[in-house]
Amino acid sequence: MSDSAGAILTVDLGAVRRNYRAVCAAFSGAEVAGVVKANAYGLGIAAVAPALAREGCATFFVATAAEAFELRRLLPAVGIHVFDGVQPGEEADFAAQRIVPVLNSLQQIELWRAHARARGRALAADLHLDTGMARLGLDRDEQRRLLAHPDELTGIDLDAILSHLAVAEDPANPMNEDQRAAFADVAPGWPSRRLSLANSSGVFLGEAFHFDLARVGVALYGANPTPGLPSPIAQVIKLQGRILQVRSVDAARSVGYGATHRVSRPSRIATVALGYADGYPLAMSNLGTAFLDSHEIPVVGRVSMDLTTVDVTDLPEGLAAPGRLVDFIGENNTIDAVAGRAKTIPYTILTGLGRRLQRIYLED
Amino acid sequence: MSDSAGAILTVDLGAVRRNYRAVCAAFSGAEVAGVVKANAYGLGIAAVAPALAREGCATFFVATAAEAFELRRLLPAVGIHVFDGVQPGEEADFAAQRIVPVLNSLQQIELWRAHARARGRALAADLHLDTGMARLGLDRDEQRRLLAHPDELTGIDLDAILSHLAVAEDPANPMNEDQRAAFADVAPGWPSRRLSLANSSGVFLGEAFHFDLARVGVALYGANPTPGLPSPIAQVIKLQGRILQVRSVDAARSVGYGATHRVSRPSRIATVALGYADGYPLAMSNLGTAFLDSHEIPVVGRVSMDLTTVDVTDLPEGLAAPGRLVDFIGENNTIDAVAGRAKTIPYTILTGLGRRLQRIYLED
Repeated sequence: MSDSAGAILTVDLGAVRRNYRAVCAAFSGAEVAGVVKANAYGLGIAAVAPALAREGCATFFVATAAEAFELRRLLPAVGIHVFDGVQPGEEADFAAQRIVPVLNSLQQIELWRAHARARGRALAADLHLDTGMARLGLDRDEQRRLLAHPDELTGIDLDAILSHLAVAEDPANPMNEDQRAAFADVAPGWPSRRLSLANSSGVFLGEAFHFDLARVGVALYGANPTPGLPSPIAQVIKLQGRILQVRSVDAARSVGYGATHRVSRPSRIATVALGYADGYPLAMSNLGTAFLDSHEIPVVGRVSMDLTTVDVTDLPEGLAAPGRLVDFIGENNTIDAVAGRAKTIPYTILTGLGRRLQRIYLED
Repeated sequence: MSDSAGAILTVDLGAVRRNYRAVCAAFSGAEVAGVVKANAYGLGIAAVAPALAREGCATFFVATAAEAFELRRLLPAVGIHVFDGVQPGEEADFAAQRIVPVLNSLQQIELWRAHARARGRALAADLHLDTGMARLGLDRDEQRRLLAHPDELTGIDLDAILSHLAVAEDPANPMNEDQRAAFADVAPGWPSRRLSLANSSGVFLGEAFHFDLARVGVALYGANPTPGLPSPIAQVIKLQGRILQVRSVDAARSVGYGATHRVSRPSRIATVALGYADGYPLAMSNLGTAFLDSHEIPVVGRVSMDLTTVDVTDLPEGLAAPGRLVDFIGENNTIDAVAGRAKTIPYTILTGLGRRLQRIYLED
């Protein structure tokens, strides 16, 4: 059905790999890990993670245990780290599958230490220090307590000490330096293999933020890690819908649910088989644009669940016809631009890509 | 892993069935069809469609060919209708699997008629008349042309003549009556089995809007088809996240990405394993509420991809603890209420429910 699918997502795995190389080139530390949580930010972990591994990426971060187990089936040999850490009942599966939990609390440390003791061998883990997110990780008091009682880490083989930057996409925000200084102050206090602070935007904050290990997600998938500056990153996705019908609409008639668009002249409206269920945001109603070849065409009316209407009045005769594909996200409408217009962030555009899309993966 | 999944969607199939019965009771026509496009509005077609069939639903509508083929594998005997109609290359599969296309254009009519001729037997189809959406369907001129040339329908066994209401959720809008009158005027002109105009809200516009066949989606899934009035419909979904960590945060510290929330007093913040990748809207940042038992707790900070932070300072000591489930959508926060607060529509809440959720289906 590839010739008739109504809504198509093309993921350029070559671009993902080039973006990984670009981040590696910008990073002064030892290693760049790939963050592939939330199904590789919606793009499909089963395709994206192996592509990154082929590019040399040897360490991956996911959010949940289920994601870690899925990734282990895909990549038997890589390092897999879990941001949520380990929950009661998951310890044996983590250990058996060599999954590295990010230990976020004294409770998780105790859980992992007890499991290491039960297995009679050291188990790898990362340690998460909160430096300002107040979300997960040890707070300052817990850090002090743990430093004062190193026996609480007996049997835990510390891989990375890590923390999360809260505002890295805003280089002028002084919170970045506060977090960096706090991290540099305390993180070396533990006997770990490496230190990790930078996310995608953190890599571009300068070498002081690099430490040993970067954890990079959204930049791999095409979002600009340096908002306001030219992007060092290539676009990865193309979101297209197929024209189902082209119709003439008289002046003063309305289009779509809620009758939110009223045409002011005799118009031609193309109805495209792509809607918000596919991930094209409702917020683009009467606001977005799409491209047919090199022609920009406005979205008119409300984006509906399965359909979007575009005004093709000004296109050359015959260009807009049933069966033709229209580009809604891609080189001409980057995910940053679409997110900005929809008043959201590129992350939600990526993770909102729908189940129904036909997914095409381009290899290099 | 059901005892440790971080984010859980519970779908009450009994409520879906009760909602189907409630719509049937309110409908004066012959039959209520279930609309299960977009994976049954995100709830899972593989569970929802069979539940509806057990309740007696015998006719289903989907948007795309791929959805129709998926539904046919689930339910070999029911009627399956496709809003997008049939595209070139799909005719043989439609006919072989007894899929009924909604014919939206003269081109689709010609395609289906040619296939009927090639097979040497009549093929069922619906005919879509546009009465004001300007999205899909025959416009007034095409309707006239087709009525004047009935031979263009030779070999097509007309099941339903249908049209879509653009503003049915707003009973006071005069466009409803305009569409109804236009439909009542022209639809009986074709030799069809039945007429179909009403969607979920259309059923509650009164008997004049009923005709023979209703096509009901969102009301089955718990959204109020009569906004502003008490809902005749039961809630269907519960969206929950598990507490990963509870932390104390000093006054004047910030929480989460972008440091958008600053606490004004010593606070306890619970971090929950549910984020916008799971379908809890980013727009609920610093705005939503959740429930722990019967206690309402505010979302603080920015909803992130995998995590949401809630302020549990005012809860009884010990109630908020790692492992506890927090309700974000359900009886206490209906999908209508959550959609309203997020400045969207309940449809996008439903279709945005994430792939990573553990899905639990409750039977009656």
